[in-house]
Amino acid sequence: MNRIESTQNNQVKEWKKLLTRKGRKKQNKYIIEGEHLVEEAIKAGAPIETILVREDKWSAYSEYDEELTILISEEISLLLTDTVTDQGVFAVLKMDEEQEKITGNKPVLLLDEVQDPGNLGTLIRSADAAGFEGVIIGKGSVDLYNSKALRSAQGSHFHLTVLHDDLSVWIERFKAKEIAVYGTALDERAVSYHQIKPADTFALIVGNEGNGVDPKILETTTENLYIPIKGQAESLNVAIAASILMFTLYK
Amino acid sequence: MNRIESTQNNQVKEWKKLLTRKGRKKQNKYIIEGEHLVEEAIKAGAPIETILVREDKWSAYSEYDEELTILISEEISLLLTDTVTDQGVFAVLKMDEEQEKITGNKPVLLLDEVQDPGNLGTLIRSADAAGFEGVIIGKGSVDLYNSKALRSAQGSHFHLTVLHDDLSVWIERFKAKEIAVYGTALDERAVSYHQIKPADTFALIVGNEGNGVDPKILETTTENLYIPIKGQAESLNVAIAASILMFTLYK
Repeated sequence: MNRIESTQNNQVKEWKKLLTRKGRKKQNKYIIEGEHLVEEAIKAGAPIETILVREDKWSAYSEYDEELTILISEEISLLLTDTVTDQGVFAVLKMDEEQEKITGNKPVLLLDEVQDPGNLGTLIRSADAAGFEGVIIGKGSVDLYNSKALRSAQGSHFHLTVLHDDLSVWIERFKAKEIAVYGTALDERAVSYHQIKPADTFALIVGNEGNGVDPKILETTTENLYIPIKGQAESLNVAIAASILMFTLYK
Repeated sequence: MNRIESTQNNQVKEWKKLLTRKGRKKQNKYIIEGEHLVEEAIKAGAPIETILVREDKWSAYSEYDEELTILISEEISLLLTDTVTDQGVFAVLKMDEEQEKITGNKPVLLLDEVQDPGNLGTLIRSADAAGFEGVIIGKGSVDLYNSKALRSAQGSHFHLTVLHDDLSVWIERFKAKEIAVYGTALDERAVSYHQIKPADTFALIVGNEGNGVDPKILETTTENLYIPIKGQAESLNVAIAASILMFTLYK
């Protein structure tokens, strides 16, 4: 089995670049961290390039494929971790965004400028639980491969298709297939989600934590929905609102 | 208007103790931070004892009641803040937990050992939005007055009643009033929430992020519910699951 000790190793420098969006884009790879995520990736048959295990942790992970595994020193592990208490296990994966996998045969969630990585990850986890076909992350959103987003998604991105793409292109595609596209809005032009009949196919768009969905996008939807608020809260958290809609609208 | 400059001032030392659970309990007070929360407290007529404004910020907040306001130095503001970019405005409030305010005439949310302050705050915000009468936080949960919980609740605790109390006492009270008490569980003994008819009154219990609701509590409920998962996610975030149930079960 290979072993790398020096933080000055060129391979290590390339991995470290995967902690930034720019580095991920250039290499078309990303890094995941922690036992749960790595095991979800293995279970799902995700395109793992390398598994990295801190050398003092190997006994705990010795069932991993030795061909894929590289042992690393504690210094390298500390360099690559995004957490305070690193578990000493990572994997480097190829990004795998296959547009053809989103057909619209099942509901799809679209995210417009979601900023908080915890929200983004929770949205993907909830879309998975709701049985959605995929999630499309628009420009201006935090990306899936952000380490906090991956942590919050808890491996759900291995279960459904997640793309980073232009939302307007997909909205037109869905409409061309006569799939209903629902925006979400707080204003009076929106209709209560209680008025929508649950269905097998639709697209749902939720937006930025402060500003909601871009008004230009809302002009292109089939219908815009709101969740009636009974109390005095001004709004719901975006992941909460999307989850209520996903679970209610999908038949 | 009063002004305090020294971090060694006795009053300042007492406020600093409000950042800990022990200090809050002893003084029966808590501290809130930031413009939004302070203004929510004023708007709601919450029992504000003192408003603290960093002296360089006073021009922005000069509409506040001068009788209640104390100007503080930047050093004191840094001592009291829990955030990286402090807004220089705080309020000290009396804890105000009136048991009589929870009658069961509207739905009530019960929290069993919820550990994450962000989840706790989001649960309170969602319960407010759903029109619930109150939230009862059981022993072993993070407390409402934790600064991150308060931030996530976004002032919703001023809109409904939040108590810290023994859940089992309340479960018996609700059952004595013939109010349905729903636990939540993932196992086979639970029934799908789709089988429950929406109603005007009920109590809903959600539990710890890892372990769910204590099995001993689940034995005392009217019925235990689960949310069917269609995809491959193992579970939903507790605030998401509770919100789906709150919005669906309340008529």
